[in-house]
Amino acid sequence: MEPDEFSPADRDVVYRVIRARRDVRQFRSDPVPDAVLGRILDAAHAAPSVGFMQPWNFILIRSLETRRLVRALFEERNRQELEAVPDDARKELYGSFKLEGILESPLNVAVTCDRRRSAPFVLGRAPMPETDLFSTCLAVENLWLAARAEGVGVGWVSILDREATQLLLGLPDGVQLVAYLCVGYPLEFRVRPMLEETGWKGRHPLGELVFQERWGQSSALFNA
Amino acid sequence: MEPDEFSPADRDVVYRVIRARRDVRQFRSDPVPDAVLGRILDAAHAAPSVGFMQPWNFILIRSLETRRLVRALFEERNRQELEAVPDDARKELYGSFKLEGILESPLNVAVTCDRRRSAPFVLGRAPMPETDLFSTCLAVENLWLAARAEGVGVGWVSILDREATQLLLGLPDGVQLVAYLCVGYPLEFRVRPMLEETGWKGRHPLGELVFQERWGQSSALFNA
Repeated sequence: MEPDEFSPADRDVVYRVIRARRDVRQFRSDPVPDAVLGRILDAAHAAPSVGFMQPWNFILIRSLETRRLVRALFEERNRQELEAVPDDARKELYGSFKLEGILESPLNVAVTCDRRRSAPFVLGRAPMPETDLFSTCLAVENLWLAARAEGVGVGWVSILDREATQLLLGLPDGVQLVAYLCVGYPLEFRVRPMLEETGWKGRHPLGELVFQERWGQSSALFNA
Repeated sequence: MEPDEFSPADRDVVYRVIRARRDVRQFRSDPVPDAVLGRILDAAHAAPSVGFMQPWNFILIRSLETRRLVRALFEERNRQELEAVPDDARKELYGSFKLEGILESPLNVAVTCDRRRSAPFVLGRAPMPETDLFSTCLAVENLWLAARAEGVGVGWVSILDREATQLLLGLPDGVQLVAYLCVGYPLEFRVRPMLEETGWKGRHPLGELVFQERWGQSSALFNA
């Protein structure tokens, strides 16, 4: 085994952390130590990026005042979302969900994409300009998995008005909010995602999502 | 330690795979066994997604004919990119880069986002509609890390005309190509990213990318 190779036991750890990761909305209040946070952000920074652009920034938000304002943005937008649920029983189920932990978590992290970075030429970005946003998402997944391995929970809050949140955080033109994350030690890591556990939505069988050669042509891979 | 917890040694494995992942463009021709590919796709499918939408599909492309057509799309677009490099020395450096392994790798995987899935209401998507594309990226990073743990290389080809590639793969309206990946056993995993190694671009110090409370306010985390 070469020094950079992974044993079967190592692989199992990687698969285990991938499967054990959850979107967490219920947190304990104790802080995440700086050393742990440093390792998690370092993992995010090791993500791949288009043209090695590393377009991400991480804004660590601990101020209760800021978090209260973000929480208010969530509540305003979430009321609209609740109204938009097309079915009464579903509306009631939606209303029962806890969808964020902005105030309970000791730390919020805004992950942004600086689309101006490495101007004027980013290798490989022009054909699909949103690949810088995509790179930032790869960093978010690294952060999420590293956190899970540290026993730290992460929850992504997407129910926010982006413009208002960007204004609140002072983002300049050309910098876009990609992910607003709640970070802290969780009350628990659920065995299954909350939306699956509550019957909101089931997991798709993977075999139905894999095609071969072109769209719609089913693959033998999972049907053997 | 609870059964779902990770030991310090386990955490080291997670950090090691995150750091050892590379964008690979040089491949051996031997195929990735179905069992390995199945595990890698399963890891992708375990990614988080907005409203548990699981908007991804994976098109496994082995046909040499299709790969030749994709390769031609790359070459056409890459000529335009080369022309756009603003400096002569940089242009020469760019010209020396191998940026894809479409034909050498035994397998290409097109990862798509079906924006129609779970219609009419996707929990949490409306406020930031591109979060379904972002979810698909999280699946790509899971795939990439799982592959690395299996000793399998992945390279993301972004230098493609999206419309033409989507047409070639038969994607219906409402389905978007997110990532076109080359997958196979690599000649090597580089110690550093190719663009860093060749001096195209350096790695940003993480401390400069971390702010506290709002944009531009430097954090003490990495300056201690």
